Amino acid sequence: MKIKLPTVWRDKIHDIIYEADTPNGKLFDLVLLSLILLSVIFVMLESVRGLPETVYFILYIGEWVITIFFTIEYILRILTVKKPWNYVFSFYGIVDFLSTIPLYLSFILVGSNYLLTVRALRLLRVFRILKVTRYIGESNKLKIALLQSRAKILIFLFTVIIVSIIAGTLMYLVEGPEHGFTNIPHSIYWCIVTLTTVGYGDISPGTPLGQFIASVIMILGYGIIAVPTGIVTAEMTKGKVKVDLNTQVCSNCNESKHRDDAKFCHKCGESLKVEN
Amino acid sequence: MKIKLPTVWRDKIHDIIYEADTPNGKLFDLVLLSLILLSVIFVMLESVRGLPETVYFILYIGEWVITIFFTIEYILRILTVKKPWNYVFSFYGIVDFLSTIPLYLSFILVGSNYLLTVRALRLLRVFRILKVTRYIGESNKLKIALLQSRAKILIFLFTVIIVSIIAGTLMYLVEGPEHGFTNIPHSIYWCIVTLTTVGYGDISPGTPLGQFIASVIMILGYGIIAVPTGIVTAEMTKGKVKVDLNTQVCSNCNESKHRDDAKFCHKCGESLKVEN
Amino acid sequence: MKIKLPTVWRDKIHDIIYEADTPNGKLFDLVLLSLILLSVIFVMLESVRGLPETVYFILYIGEWVITIFFTIEYILRILTVKKPWNYVFSFYGIVDFLSTIPLYLSFILVGSNYLLTVRALRLLRVFRILKVTRYIGESNKLKIALLQSRAKILIFLFTVIIVSIIAGTLMYLVEGPEHGFTNIPHSIYWCIVTLTTVGYGDISPGTPLGQFIASVIMILGYGIIAVPTGIVTAEMTKGKVKVDLNTQVCSNCNESKHRDDAKFCHKCGESLKVEN
Amino acid sequence: MKIKLPTVWRDKIHDIIYEADTPNGKLFDLVLLSLILLSVIFVMLESVRGLPETVYFILYIGEWVITIFFTIEYILRILTVKKPWNYVFSFYGIVDFLSTIPLYLSFILVGSNYLLTVRALRLLRVFRILKVTRYIGESNKLKIALLQSRAKILIFLFTVIIVSIIAGTLMYLVEGPEHGFTNIPHSIYWCIVTLTTVGYGDISPGTPLGQFIASVIMILGYGIIAVPTGIVTAEMTKGKVKVDLNTQVCSNCNESKHRDDAKFCHKCGESLKVEN
Repeated sequence: MKIKLPTVWRDKIHDIIYEADTPNGKLFDLVLLSLILLSVIFVMLESVRGLPETVYFILYIGEWVITIFFTIEYILRILTVKKPWNYVFSFYGIVDFLSTIPLYLSFILVGSNYLLTVRALRLLRVFRILKVTRYIGESNKLKIALLQSRAKILIFLFTVIIVSIIAGTLMYLVEGPEHGFTNIPHSIYWCIVTLTTVGYGDISPGTPLGQFIASVIMILGYGIIAVPTGIVTAEMTKGKVKVDLNTQVCSNCNESKHRDDAKFCHKCGESLKVEN
Repeated sequence: MKIKLPTVWRDKIHDIIYEADTPNGKLFDLVLLSLILLSVIFVMLESVRGLPETVYFILYIGEWVITIFFTIEYILRILTVKKPWNYVFSFYGIVDFLSTIPLYLSFILVGSNYLLTVRALRLLRVFRILKVTRYIGESNKLKIALLQSRAKILIFLFTVIIVSIIAGTLMYLVEGPEHGFTNIPHSIYWCIVTLTTVGYGDISPGTPLGQFIASVIMILGYGIIAVPTGIVTAEMTKGKVKVDLNTQVCSNCNESKHRDDAKFCHKCGESLKVEN
Repeated sequence: MKIKLPTVWRDKIHDIIYEADTPNGKLFDLVLLSLILLSVIFVMLESVRGLPETVYFILYIGEWVITIFFTIEYILRILTVKKPWNYVFSFYGIVDFLSTIPLYLSFILVGSNYLLTVRALRLLRVFRILKVTRYIGESNKLKIALLQSRAKILIFLFTVIIVSIIAGTLMYLVEGPEHGFTNIPHSIYWCIVTLTTVGYGDISPGTPLGQFIASVIMILGYGIIAVPTGIVTAEMTKGKVKVDLNTQVCSNCNESKHRDDAKFCHKCGESLKVEN
Repeated sequence: MKIKLPTVWRDKIHDIIYEADTPNGKLFDLVLLSLILLSVIFVMLESVRGLPETVYFILYIGEWVITIFFTIEYILRILTVKKPWNYVFSFYGIVDFLSTIPLYLSFILVGSNYLLTVRALRLLRVFRILKVTRYIGESNKLKIALLQSRAKILIFLFTVIIVSIIAGTLMYLVEGPEHGFTNIPHSIYWCIVTLTTVGYGDISPGTPLGQFIASVIMILGYGIIAVPTGIVTAEMTKGKVKVDLNTQVCSNCNESKHRDDAKFCHKCGESLKVEN
């Protein structure tokens, strides 16, 4: 089913809803963001009990108005873009869909309207209005830093989980259900609460031995907290441009520390024989 | 309305209240700081219940004496400076005004005298007495580090808020009011308490599923805590010109720590024989 | 006692249980990991009360099936490797033994079957299936970073312990048993809970003086938290050879990113004209 | 009063109690450390209630034996060292004195024997037995890192205190005594508990507005936690050798980035005219 809008309309609407630099595009984005924000606040307020009946009615109406606006916007986005499927399956496309559907679903599933808070993700569009390139650059840097250290992060997560399982079981055996460690999964939950230094205190060790083990876990957690920080910081401080250097020595001028892919000496121009 | 003090007086008073290096200026600053500190302690004490009646009376008198002193000081600051408006609308000018007005306001608004703790901000004047330049330099470095990474910080804050909204709603749906998650804003508050690893424990998940989600949020928060640290550290460590120095010693003047690529001694100009 | 399997069998079994790259080896590792994971989940579930009787029966049977599988695997590992003792006393050998024995022990010692969670350590085998070298390289880096800073870490731990002992005693004297500080070891436990910013709240200071001392300890802990992070980060960021690169482009081959002091292109040997 | 031991004795005793490398000195240090550790454990155990009467009696005897040993050691240290006053007023001299006196004081002041835990500080002597120089070197590095960043640390502490005072007062006004914020000092205590992410939960905001302000304080604290970490890390990663470079350009070869104190160009040996 391919519905095509007249090309003139299509271009105009495309300019408004996809562009952020034209006056109309900027205005549209501002209106959109305000509606998203309003909608998120509406969902939040709706969960608050004890407000007058009329407030809930207004929230209900408001939510429907915004959802219908979003539905029209979503359809227009599909109609005015050249490759609709690319948009539909892009990150924003999925978020836009998930932001629209829950209210319609609430006819079938009671309570599914709370899923509307997924709209909070749409707030990421705010970066379109701010100086886009800069923020995209920065968030890309963060993304690259995270990606490059994913091996380290995986090892770290693995360590946390294994430590939690073993320490959790140990605490279950030591403390037992009478001090709140009702079963091993519950003990593991306590262990994660402790390792991450959150420490709710809904469960806490009651026996001297349990408190001693807990102290060891805490100091361990103290050391573990250093690891992700170290990883991220190391990635961030790493020079913007990184080049692998080797220990090869130029046969003519003895200059060393050449780029790994260097074919000629950067000092005297002598050809470098590749040995490895 | 322009009141002008005689120039001789004006200069003398200006020296006392604006200078920090002259003996009189230093003495004035010390007296001022003591009074500010005293005043902050007075306000704190006043909020403590159960003290004898006379203590409250002394505190009341003391507060008025200090406030009148501050009022006179504020007026003199305006009268003795060349461009009064610059002072009035400067950071310190506004702080000085806000530090003086609440007690007068307390005739009209009951309880507004507690706003006197804004005087704590006046304590920043302490840096005037300490070796000023050094501390200003350091705090400027901190300020620049924060400013330069404001894009990263904004992205970070945004991530925290969006994660909180979505995770908060999820926990509200999973746990519900019977475990303390009375509404979505309350759940978001819990989520921030958890993500920042504060963990009061006034609300904590009661169902196994809720505890599992909470564990995921905690470990996520553990990773998120690394980001601002990484940002600040990266800003602080960068921006130093770094040059490789070696341990070579000049044969003429025994100067060491030459640049690695130095061919002549930077102290005496003697030619450095490259040994390695 | 030396039991020898026929060489052909031995080689085939060795290939299956020790190799990770052959199809059979990979399949075996996947089955093994699934069983380990399943077994850990079984032990966890067994500790949960209130499930139907049949579930406990199934868990019991499942545990025995997996344990017998692990026992056979353990024996085969010993029989098919050339130097069995090397395996038995290696890290994985000990973990494999400790993962098998607790269920047999449970005939003698009631409750020892919970020690089966030591099997979680076997999950470390997951790195065999992932791109091994990379993760081993990364975890080695972490290990080296920790080893190289062990002197700093020891000093840090020592500081934490001594501060805890002294501050714990102080709080015991100030707060006393009526506020939960029942004895000095308990106070030290509280102090570690506070220094590591876990803060359960099962014990918290009740007197103004105690709260003041607690505040000082907290801010101290705030500073102390910086030390391990600093240590790990410093170790991680160091040891990369760094060279300044510039944006000059070779006139011959258009190669860029030359060393700042390069006089010839490292790719084609063309002389680089220094422009700046 | 100058008591002099015979020189031969004096030298021998000096060797035993001051040296750590001779066999006798090493043995003495090990005995001393064991006694210190034992003594600290004795004081801790004494505070535990509910043990049999005989245990308290043994602890009492043990404490006196150790104290008498320490007293003799302290006197011998003074007698066998050349400049006794240097020892008496050194860090270890004061610690040794404070470790000996409390038990004697307990005849006059009941409860002062708990001050014996100051003996924990004597445990620092453990570094004498470990490879001393290495640990001293590392702890000196930490000390220098802390000293060099003391301006930054002071600014940081100041910020924490001022934020705590103002935010504490605000929360007192918003929440009031009915939610546990009984007075401003108590509120400030809560604020420090929150900013440092300890979060006991003995006091926690009860009103929506209070929870909103608390959330802001927490996220702020999240950022503040980055500052000391950044400071320490930056000091630690800073190159071992640091030299100030300036932007002066050599009049002969145009080489720049000379050491600030360079008198001759490090590249061509030309004399550098000092301009500033």
